[in-house]
Amino acid sequence: MSYKTDAEIAQSSTMRPIGEIAANLGLNADQFEPYGKHKAKINPADAFALPPKQGRLILVTAINPTPAGEGKTTVTIGLADALNHIGKQAVIALREPSLGPVFGIKGGAAGGGYAQVLPMEDINLHFTGDFHAIGAANNLLAAMLDNHIYQGNELNIDPKRVLWRRVVDMNDRQLRNIINGIGKPTDGVMRPDGFDITVASEVMAVFCLANDLADLKTRLGNILVAYAKDGSPVYARDLKANGAMAALLKDAIKPNLVQTIEGTPALVHGGPFANIAHGCNSVLATRIARHLGDYTVTEAGFGADLGAEKFCDIKCRLAGIKPDAAVVVATVRALKYNGGVERANLGDENVAALAKGLPNLLKHISNLKNVFGLPVVVALNRFVSDSDAELAMIQTACAEHGVEVSLTEVWGKGGAGGADLAEKVVKAIESGENHFQFAYDTDLSIQEKIRTIAQKIYGADDVDFSAEALAEIASLEKLNLDKMPVCMAKTQYSLSDNAKLLGKPEGFRITVRGITVSAGAGFIVALCGNMMKMPGLPKVPAAEKIDVDADGVIHGLF
Amino acid sequence: MSYKTDAEIAQSSTMRPIGEIAANLGLNADQFEPYGKHKAKINPADAFALPPKQGRLILVTAINPTPAGEGKTTVTIGLADALNHIGKQAVIALREPSLGPVFGIKGGAAGGGYAQVLPMEDINLHFTGDFHAIGAANNLLAAMLDNHIYQGNELNIDPKRVLWRRVVDMNDRQLRNIINGIGKPTDGVMRPDGFDITVASEVMAVFCLANDLADLKTRLGNILVAYAKDGSPVYARDLKANGAMAALLKDAIKPNLVQTIEGTPALVHGGPFANIAHGCNSVLATRIARHLGDYTVTEAGFGADLGAEKFCDIKCRLAGIKPDAAVVVATVRALKYNGGVERANLGDENVAALAKGLPNLLKHISNLKNVFGLPVVVALNRFVSDSDAELAMIQTACAEHGVEVSLTEVWGKGGAGGADLAEKVVKAIESGENHFQFAYDTDLSIQEKIRTIAQKIYGADDVDFSAEALAEIASLEKLNLDKMPVCMAKTQYSLSDNAKLLGKPEGFRITVRGITVSAGAGFIVALCGNMMKMPGLPKVPAAEKIDVDADGVIHGLF
Repeated sequence: MSYKTDAEIAQSSTMRPIGEIAANLGLNADQFEPYGKHKAKINPADAFALPPKQGRLILVTAINPTPAGEGKTTVTIGLADALNHIGKQAVIALREPSLGPVFGIKGGAAGGGYAQVLPMEDINLHFTGDFHAIGAANNLLAAMLDNHIYQGNELNIDPKRVLWRRVVDMNDRQLRNIINGIGKPTDGVMRPDGFDITVASEVMAVFCLANDLADLKTRLGNILVAYAKDGSPVYARDLKANGAMAALLKDAIKPNLVQTIEGTPALVHGGPFANIAHGCNSVLATRIARHLGDYTVTEAGFGADLGAEKFCDIKCRLAGIKPDAAVVVATVRALKYNGGVERANLGDENVAALAKGLPNLLKHISNLKNVFGLPVVVALNRFVSDSDAELAMIQTACAEHGVEVSLTEVWGKGGAGGADLAEKVVKAIESGENHFQFAYDTDLSIQEKIRTIAQKIYGADDVDFSAEALAEIASLEKLNLDKMPVCMAKTQYSLSDNAKLLGKPEGFRITVRGITVSAGAGFIVALCGNMMKMPGLPKVPAAEKIDVDADGVIHGLF
Repeated sequence: MSYKTDAEIAQSSTMRPIGEIAANLGLNADQFEPYGKHKAKINPADAFALPPKQGRLILVTAINPTPAGEGKTTVTIGLADALNHIGKQAVIALREPSLGPVFGIKGGAAGGGYAQVLPMEDINLHFTGDFHAIGAANNLLAAMLDNHIYQGNELNIDPKRVLWRRVVDMNDRQLRNIINGIGKPTDGVMRPDGFDITVASEVMAVFCLANDLADLKTRLGNILVAYAKDGSPVYARDLKANGAMAALLKDAIKPNLVQTIEGTPALVHGGPFANIAHGCNSVLATRIARHLGDYTVTEAGFGADLGAEKFCDIKCRLAGIKPDAAVVVATVRALKYNGGVERANLGDENVAALAKGLPNLLKHISNLKNVFGLPVVVALNRFVSDSDAELAMIQTACAEHGVEVSLTEVWGKGGAGGADLAEKVVKAIESGENHFQFAYDTDLSIQEKIRTIAQKIYGADDVDFSAEALAEIASLEKLNLDKMPVCMAKTQYSLSDNAKLLGKPEGFRITVRGITVSAGAGFIVALCGNMMKMPGLPKVPAAEKIDVDADGVIHGLF
């Protein structure tokens, strides 16, 4: 049996004109801005002028990620297609992909198989330019900051305590650590600096949490960019940079509308890192999707310990949004990997290993149900190698937690392959058992917030703070920047902060090595390990195979 | 008397839907790609499928620029409006503005007064994202190059002889000279590097000279990026980067369609530097404009010694285009400045100074008529301070050269203020006296080509080559990269290479300090002085005043 690649499936699909997709959302020709024939931007004012729909919000999250792949984005897209398939009206809200992975190792973030958003080539290849606009806003702030120092440094900024880095939407390890301002006296002021990838920029996080243009401008102004030599904080507003930054983002801030292979509307907008930031698409995309759709299906980065926790405690809290249900994606293969099976042997039935890995799924279910109070359904992405005994074990365990499991085949069958999942999700929502709440109160001290997340969500015994972290906490308390939610930056591969502890680790402690603040975005970042903010390219970059023919058709993309 | 600012005039104008503008060019709704309501991209294949129009090509050029301002872009736009005003069918082809000047000192490049292209805010604020796409292609090549060195350096690239620099579309002096690859062994290979502004990238020049996607890919592959340790050249194609670079440019390469205040179609596309590159909009925009319009009005950067010479000898030669007429823009004020008058006194009548400055205009007229064989008309941008005696002196002198002068008022009156100019340009074209030819043959040696330009166009006695330039010439001859046109990088303020020699200098020599090659673009660059490829911001950047309100309206832009 031969399978088509994702690109082949995408390129053999017929897209509808984007005006038809917009019309399905109730938007007439004057209420969206086309970008080519199959992309559009929606001005939030146009969307919110329409009467609101039911606006049920479904978060798709997952077990801790493994090299086996779980298919979270594919299920997100497939579930929305499936909801439409069973006669509901669903809209998708997704993150935009970065160019980094496209040219690096893995490729796109537009779903897979018959559950993809289209045009996948455009979505993966800088799309409507949002990330470049974010990069330009980030780099304008950097240029204005260094220009301020060079032109007399009225704010007395300490060049050794500049927090703001430059960005580029590219995997470019060469730029991680640089010295700039080298040369003649007219070439700036020499200092250590570096570049992150654009998705790691705080401007990206701000962009994704802003409620509107005015809020965007305020948040951009609140970005802490440096300390003066006397230790006082310097914000972007002190450099008068936020107005021009917002001007650069005036079009980017409008969510992008595309479609799935089955014609389901998808708002694909924003894409912050899921470690040092909150890993969710823009608040505006989610709010518009809820306003225009009876069901909105969205996802968050990494597993539920990071993604769902930040979705609830950061995004939903800051945006005043209440989710209606959570779907946890898992596969038999990934759970066996969590139970210690090598990647090469994941196709073999192994009930013992599954029993060892399964608690990972159960812990995430318990968090979503008991900590966050959400109705939960498990989506088990089906593989031919899954044995009946393995599937039965998962179903039994989930039933004991009062959670339904759906075997989904959206990759191979699109929406039809997720009809059962859609029915179960609708049933869970309509059960009315939604007692959504946050995991912690922002009024707690920074240490207490982190301790609560670590104990409640990760199952840690306790948290250790480095001296550096404690000093930074004291500094943030002095600046009154401590009463915000905490964004945990830890490994995605484990519930703990040790990537090797799979399954459901017990008896571990979390170490917070450092604390930083994203004062514009509105959260405190707890660093539990080294977070890579500028990836590198592999020995043979995917870029070497990417090509475009004379007709503009892209080849070699996944 | 109070004048509106350019922004106020632009924002009080009513734009037509872009589909109407496209329809005026013969493009139906399937033959253009809207980007919002007032911008579109045109796929060249759609345009060239239509029957060709008369395709007369008018180059608008100018005397050497002065701080007084000549208004070349304003005349370009106004002339096209005027041609439509007198019943002809005209299309504009212009360069896109860079973000650098927008946030720095001067502001936009979308014309002025009632001769502007709209929406000027979008055009000036990264427009349809073309420059960011060009930057991404440039930086992908840089990342792949450094990754190649880091991953084993099979091509044996000498890290000290990397020619390829990174870019950002921003005035950021801090990045001119950097050291990157600093840090741990996994953070790249330490080497000197630096950033240019995106418009200075060779990718920009390649983009503007490419005939189609296939040609773009070939030219990108021909970019010389480094030398190996044995001295052999390393091209972008050796890094297998050009396919992915072209893929990043697949949408950007489609020319952008906008409109003037009077509804004249304008193709605004590409914008290379006019010193180290050729300073013209894309060949594709010019070719589409000619295909869809009876008259195409375009411009080239700086004065005629640089702009018109490169337009003819580089752009027209490489694209196989023949221009039909040239318009030289001048003002009484700028000619008096050329005659030695201080800026503050330009409003006073000064016939003696005008007589001293006037030969600058006459030399450019002579070059265009006698060297390039083109019909020429002078457009004198009228100011209230111009005296009758001054205007008469210019008209008499031009008449002696067989050239008509038109007093134009397009800034204040739009197309109606350029009707006389339009009539005179049409008459000049219809006179049939077009004997277009290049200034030199590319088969000449590099020295001979440079000498020919310097003597014929600048009026220099001779050329001196530094030892470094001679060594580089020998190296290019060895690589068979010497039979291409030469792009002169010298000051724009003088016919000589000394910015202070105004008017028509005599008895001077040109010094070529260095030679570089843009092997992908297809020209050799002769450096006559230090060319700034990364500007800086002024003490009070224009960015500080730029803002966007809650409705998305831009404020503080010019």
